[in-house]
Amino acid sequence: SKRHTITLLPGDGIGPEVISVARNVLNLAASVEGIEFKYQEVPVGGAALDLTGVPLPEETLLAAKQSDAVLLGAIGGYKWDKNEKHLKPETGLLKLREGLKVFANLRPATVLPQLVDASTLKREVAEGVDLMVVRELTGGIYFGKPRGFGTNENGEEIGFNTEVYAAYEIDRIARVAFETARKRKGKLCSVDKANVLEASMFWRKRIMAIALEYPDVELSHMYVDNAAMQLVRDPKQFDTIVTNNIFGDILSDEASMITGSIGMLPSASLGESGPGLFEPIHGSAPDIAGQDKANPLATILSAAMLLKYGLGEEKAAKRIEAAVLDTLNKGFRTGDIYSAGTKLVGCKEMGEEVLKSV
Amino acid sequence: SKRHTITLLPGDGIGPEVISVARNVLNLAASVEGIEFKYQEVPVGGAALDLTGVPLPEETLLAAKQSDAVLLGAIGGYKWDKNEKHLKPETGLLKLREGLKVFANLRPATVLPQLVDASTLKREVAEGVDLMVVRELTGGIYFGKPRGFGTNENGEEIGFNTEVYAAYEIDRIARVAFETARKRKGKLCSVDKANVLEASMFWRKRIMAIALEYPDVELSHMYVDNAAMQLVRDPKQFDTIVTNNIFGDILSDEASMITGSIGMLPSASLGESGPGLFEPIHGSAPDIAGQDKANPLATILSAAMLLKYGLGEEKAAKRIEAAVLDTLNKGFRTGDIYSAGTKLVGCKEMGEEVLKSV
Ligand SMILES: CC(C)[C@H](C(=O)O)[C@@H](O)C(=O)O
Ligand SMILES: CC(C)[C@H](C(=O)O)[C@@H](O)C(=O)O
Repeated sequence: SKRHTITLLPGDGIGPEVISVARNVLNLAASVEGIEFKYQEVPVGGAALDLTGVPLPEETLLAAKQSDAVLLGAIGGYKWDKNEKHLKPETGLLKLREGLKVFANLRPATVLPQLVDASTLKREVAEGVDLMVVRELTGGIYFGKPRGFGTNENGEEIGFNTEVYAAYEIDRIARVAFETARKRKGKLCSVDKANVLEASMFWRKRIMAIALEYPDVELSHMYVDNAAMQLVRDPKQFDTIVTNNIFGDILSDEASMITGSIGMLPSASLGESGPGLFEPIHGSAPDIAGQDKANPLATILSAAMLLKYGLGEEKAAKRIEAAVLDTLNKGFRTGDIYSAGTKLVGCKEMGEEVLKSV
Repeated sequence: SKRHTITLLPGDGIGPEVISVARNVLNLAASVEGIEFKYQEVPVGGAALDLTGVPLPEETLLAAKQSDAVLLGAIGGYKWDKNEKHLKPETGLLKLREGLKVFANLRPATVLPQLVDASTLKREVAEGVDLMVVRELTGGIYFGKPRGFGTNENGEEIGFNTEVYAAYEIDRIARVAFETARKRKGKLCSVDKANVLEASMFWRKRIMAIALEYPDVELSHMYVDNAAMQLVRDPKQFDTIVTNNIFGDILSDEASMITGSIGMLPSASLGESGPGLFEPIHGSAPDIAGQDKANPLATILSAAMLLKYGLGEEKAAKRIEAAVLDTLNKGFRTGDIYSAGTKLVGCKEMGEEVLKSV
């Protein structure tokens, strides 16, 4: 039987709860499909800060790099909010993405028929939404230099960052996006602000160059302000969206809220080679941490993405996805997706119900 | 009687139609209130490009600067979309904002009871939304230097921009925002990405410093990705939002779409002194230009903002706002806000109906 090493990064808040549930689901799916996992659990984010004084200990990055895939719970919390930049939990996450070189962040936003009423959008607008945001994750203004604090030529205090993209960074995320669109409905919308920003003009130029390799994919371009509107007006018009790091941060969160069930949404971050990083898109939710209230489905679905995109174990991935749908069909709901007539369960019980269907 | 000089910038697409209607409304309101206007109409955007070869002729900027207030229709269109940066209609608008030094952009997003069904959000989510985005308009990544194209240290082609804010730029927009919040419900939410960007950390630091001058205003901070979600989840939680140029571009458009009637929404751009710039937030809508289909209400309401914020003529402003509500109450609707049981009218007829109520 095949063996894979998985690094588990429970992190902060509800992270440990959802990771523990997802691990059980992974195990069962694996044993049914004849796969074997070896786990290593290491600290990141606030948990790492408390334990070691830094948000991404060297041992954690090394363990992650040497494994076949990484599953992360969530990071951050009020406790560390006022920390200086290099001591923020978020900085640990950014260093992890950078260290693993996972430049392509895939964020699906899907409205399941069972959960359409969880959306704040009208039923006819939300029903059937099924889009994928491909966000560039290791470049742009998140990592661009120069950055920092200083004074300008008039001696005034300033804070500054650099939005910068090199051709190869755009080309490689473009290829991931075109490949993704090709496997979906064949429509790719590139989002930029090319009417104002040179970085966006260059982005658009490279996207158009790479498009020549994918004549079968229908490419369009949209300004980011318009995209933010169109996601509210008619999210069904989108199939695959590709955009830079900061616009992707904003638009993928907006898209996820449009589905109304961000407790359900997984994500995958992939590089050229080496292990991928898989995590729910929700945060660490410190207000409900340790209360067995968290929705573990986003992490369970992230584990399914790990199997599919990270290990090529499509059958095991499908098994987990089917088990989640089955559990929803049986009416089980955590608090965040509860509605009258369904069965309210906690994090652990939801996990046990999914196990029954795996 | 008082005299004011108003610069009219019809611009492109539906711009001339809506400006002509708004001018009639301004005139009537003025004559009733004993105010006199002198108009000068000058070209900007694509119209200026076609006429003079540049998107903001010197004469246009000079005329605008020497007047008491500026009313703009809309700019842009397919025809000029492929132009180089300095020959884009958008560049004319950016130069106009820069030239008039209008650093504070006020963008209300209000759901009128008459139009609540125009929103794609559920009635209970949309009903009663009444928020104001205060967007910094002459700084940040829109204007920051260095910017352009080049090669990095590995000889790879790059495109880049600089997000930069000086203390005085943040301080002055903060004061406008606190004053605005004070006149509204006294709640200000500052939106940034201070968990990642130094420019945002500096932004937050200055906002907190200025907050000491406004102890009566309740200040909160939110990350931009979360703000994009919260606008969809529960827009009623917001009263006044203050944010930088690019985040303001994205969030104000998202907020406007949440109301479902962007054909209704005005905006005001103000400086320390000198004339303000007033414009509908919708674009030039080239697909319906010249067909008498445009909704002139956003421009009419921009004229009301011009009277109130630009000239201090509160009574005339209120008269126009009341006339718009009255016209909606009588059931008149342009195509963009039409629903069964209301009366469909064109741009001109809508203008005439408003005139009847002024
Ligand atoms: C926590 C934060 C640094 C992170 C980001 O901005 O990338 C988060 O918002 C996300 O989208 O994964
Ligand atoms: C046309 C464009 C340059 C402009 C902007 O980005 O500021 C527009 O989107 C706006 O919001 O007024």
